[in-house]
This record gives sequence, structure tokens and C-alpha cells, in this order.
Amino acid sequence: MKIRVYFEDTDIGGIVYHTKYINFCERARSELLFKHGLKPFDVATNSGYVVKSLECDFLKTATLGDILEVRTSLLSRSQASFTLLQEIFKEEERIFSMRVTLVALKNGKPTKLDPQLLALFEGVDK
Amino acid sequence: MKIRVYFEDTDIGGIVYHTKYINFCERARSELLFKHGLKPFDVATNSGYVVKSLECDFLKTATLGDILEVRTSLLSRSQASFTLLQEIFKEEERIFSMRVTLVALKNGKPTKLDPQLLALFEGVDK
Amino acid sequence: MKIRVYFEDTDIGGIVYHTKYINFCERARSELLFKHGLKPFDVATNSGYVVKSLECDFLKTATLGDILEVRTSLLSRSQASFTLLQEIFKEEERIFSMRVTLVALKNGKPTKLDPQLLALFEGVDK
Amino acid sequence: MKIRVYFEDTDIGGIVYHTKYINFCERARSELLFKHGLKPFDVATNSGYVVKSLECDFLKTATLGDILEVRTSLLSRSQASFTLLQEIFKEEERIFSMRVTLVALKNGKPTKLDPQLLALFEGVDK
Repeated sequence: MKIRVYFEDTDIGGIVYHTKYINFCERARSELLFKHGLKPFDVATNSGYVVKSLECDFLKTATLGDILEVRTSLLSRSQASFTLLQEIFKEEERIFSMRVTLVALKNGKPTKLDPQLLALFEGVDK
Repeated sequence: MKIRVYFEDTDIGGIVYHTKYINFCERARSELLFKHGLKPFDVATNSGYVVKSLECDFLKTATLGDILEVRTSLLSRSQASFTLLQEIFKEEERIFSMRVTLVALKNGKPTKLDPQLLALFEGVDK
Repeated sequence: MKIRVYFEDTDIGGIVYHTKYINFCERARSELLFKHGLKPFDVATNSGYVVKSLECDFLKTATLGDILEVRTSLLSRSQASFTLLQEIFKEEERIFSMRVTLVALKNGKPTKLDPQLLALFEGVDK
Repeated sequence: MKIRVYFEDTDIGGIVYHTKYINFCERARSELLFKHGLKPFDVATNSGYVVKSLECDFLKTATLGDILEVRTSLLSRSQASFTLLQEIFKEEERIFSMRVTLVALKNGKPTKLDPQLLALFEGVDK
């Protein structure tokens, strides 16, 4: 998934504000679901996925107008949670790397992961 | 209400990103309600206030570390909507001015304004 | 320009936070410049465009997963400023409308508009 | 440092959007500097602090109107970087925990840490 850096993503330092990279990764996760007719959150059933933990490294910076690419792969999974590796590239250079663990919740309680969702993340290469 | 400008509010131009001033005004409206035990949005009854229209003038700029003050006054009201004047000051200089019209909604439909809320906005001087 | 609504754009009301529509319009303005090799802000010469004033109407709402389209047209212009009409559509229904006036600045002072930029906005139909 | 949760901090799930907790921690770091006359970023000398890495755990959620408290302590430091533990509490319950490593940069290159800044973070208890 390609993402353009706009004004709202930058800060006074002239570069992208650090948590925006984490938002970009969330957009990439959601986009993958939307494209396959799945919903990252369903109001009707009050079910969705929440971030349980994350670890990230800020390797290089990006700035206004840059086009970034988010690449996602599945690292591991259990009954109700899964861990992804998400990396952001700027012209083939890796500038950000994150391991993020998500939990499936229904009415605020952990629930079994949707197998269709896991298949999606197992299948991605970009 | 006083608001500090942080990194996330600035952009690459070195100043506050334009829509952040509008967010600051929203914070000031919400804060007034919170302080008086009212809620700007109630999940249980699905009722709250939405912005119908706004007009704003960006007069001067603010930057990282500035402390801004939002002043709010009631301009007019009808059965289901009301219009506020909200101005932002930096050390007594007015840097932003906005007229904003809000509508009371319940389950997505206009509803009568809460008289307690109007009394609040009629009473404010800051 | 098409824009997907992600989590970060929504709020507890279940819809897009009001100032996000204004950000979406800024993205559309910047994207038009980027696509034609122009920069909305140039650090080296400290020149760019700032929003002087805006008027907007919130007509309908959008929510998570919606794909919105921003359409932009030039309303008027003077030596150092220009006014655009920007409208947001959801499946051909207009949900947001804004008139925004921008000023060209160099080192914080108004400067003559770039004719290349005006030609761009005169030429847009989407 | 106390922080109120506003509309812009929440998402359609009815809770605070995950990266906002990380922003709240950044506000707390900056506020500590502002209060002591230091700047987290100086345009004139192009020097400041950037986030190198972070690890965080999302333990509980917060929602609109909540008042959160960020507590910060120094975990370790080297010549050009330092690591903080930042925790967010809601009424004495810990809802978020983060280890963040920051690097001092001048013109984009690592530089020696300001001893005044370290003294600040060594001295904080909240």
C-alpha cells in the first residue's frame, strides 16, 4: 500500500511526526480488510481488533510529498491474537519497522480470530 | 481555556496546522461541558452536537510551545441549533476567529437543545 | 482525488471528525501540485501557501471505510491570493462544501502567485 | 501532567485511538522542557530530540472526557541518547506503558545530550 505524506503528517522539525508511521501501518492493515470485503470494526456487533502491544524502530525520516510503501507479513498467531511485522519503505529503503500484536474483541472481550482474516495476512507479500 | 501547542499541532511550515485551531475551539466547547457535568456526546442515548457550518479567519500564526487561549460567546440560537463566536488569543493578540453553528442530534435526527447547555454558553465570558 | 476513511479519521460519534474533511481538501490541493512537480511548501526558499479564511458546510456524514472524492475548482484570484471551491462527494452525493482562500507567502510576507499554480487550478475539473 | 481526552482523540470504537497515548507521552516530555525554559526543538540551531525506538503495551482503554495522567522516569542514558519509562494512569489505574529511546540531533546528526535536560528527567517523579 502506497501512502503520500501530506502537511498534516509533518511537524516543525520538517519531517513526519513519529506516531504517523504507526498510523500508516494501521491504514495498511485496514485497507487490506476493506479490499476483501472485511471490516476492521463492526458497530452492529461491536467487534473488531485492538492493538495490544507494539515495538518499533525509527530508522530514517520521510518528509512532505514523499510516497511511502507499507509492507506487512504475519509473524505468529494464537487463538485470539496475532502478530504482524510491518515495514515502511521510501524508494526501496526501509525507514521504519514495527512488530504489532492485535487482539480480536467482541463486546470488549477477547474472541476467536476470523480465519478469513488470518488467511489474508498469511497471503500478503506487500 | 488555555491550550499549549505541541509538536503534533505544528507542520513543516513551522507553524500550527490550520485545522488545529478549529480543533482547539472544539476542545474549549467540550471542556466547558465536562466542567459542568454535561457530555458533548452520550453513547447510551446516541445524542450529541455536530458542527453544521463554520466560517473562520486565520489572522496570525502560532508555533511550538505557545500558550493559546480560546474565548467563546453565544451569538444566536434557534430550537435545535446555536451559533458561537470562538476566538483564539496569543498573549492578548487575537490570532484566529470562528463562527460555528452546532446542531443537537439524537439518533441522527435534530432534537431540542438542552436549556442547561444554552445557559452555559450564555454565561461564558472566556 | 479519492480518499479512504480510516480509524484515525473517525471519532466516538461513529463518523468522520469534522475538521478531517478540511484536511482532506488540503490533501487534494497538495496532491494536485505534487502530481505536476510543484511544491506546496519549499523549505529552501521558505515559501508556500497558507489558508487565510474558509467557510464550510457539513451536509452529510461519512464513516469508516467510505471512499470519498474531493473536487476542486477556482472561484477567483488576485495578485497574491486565490479562492477555491472544494466539495467532497460520497458515491455522487455531496457531503461537504468549502470555500477557501489561500495566500502565497515568502519568508512570511505575501508574494505574487505562481502562474503555473493558477493554471493548474484553472484547469482542474475534479 | 494531566491530559483530557477530547473528540479528536477517540475513534469509531468509542475509545482513544492507539497512537494518541504515544502522543500524550510526547506532550508530557515537551511540557517538562517548556516549564523549565528549555525547547524540545530549536529552529534557529536545527537541534532537538527524535524518537529512535519505542515499545509499548496497551493495558486498558480510555474514552471521551477521561482525565489521564502521564508519569515519566529516566531508565538509562548514553552520550547521545536516553531511555524513558512513560506510563499513563486513569484514576490511579495504569492503562498504558512505554519505553522510549530518544536521540539528540543537531543538523540531522547525533550530538551530546544537554546535561540540563538529563537533570530534568532524573528529577521527575510524575
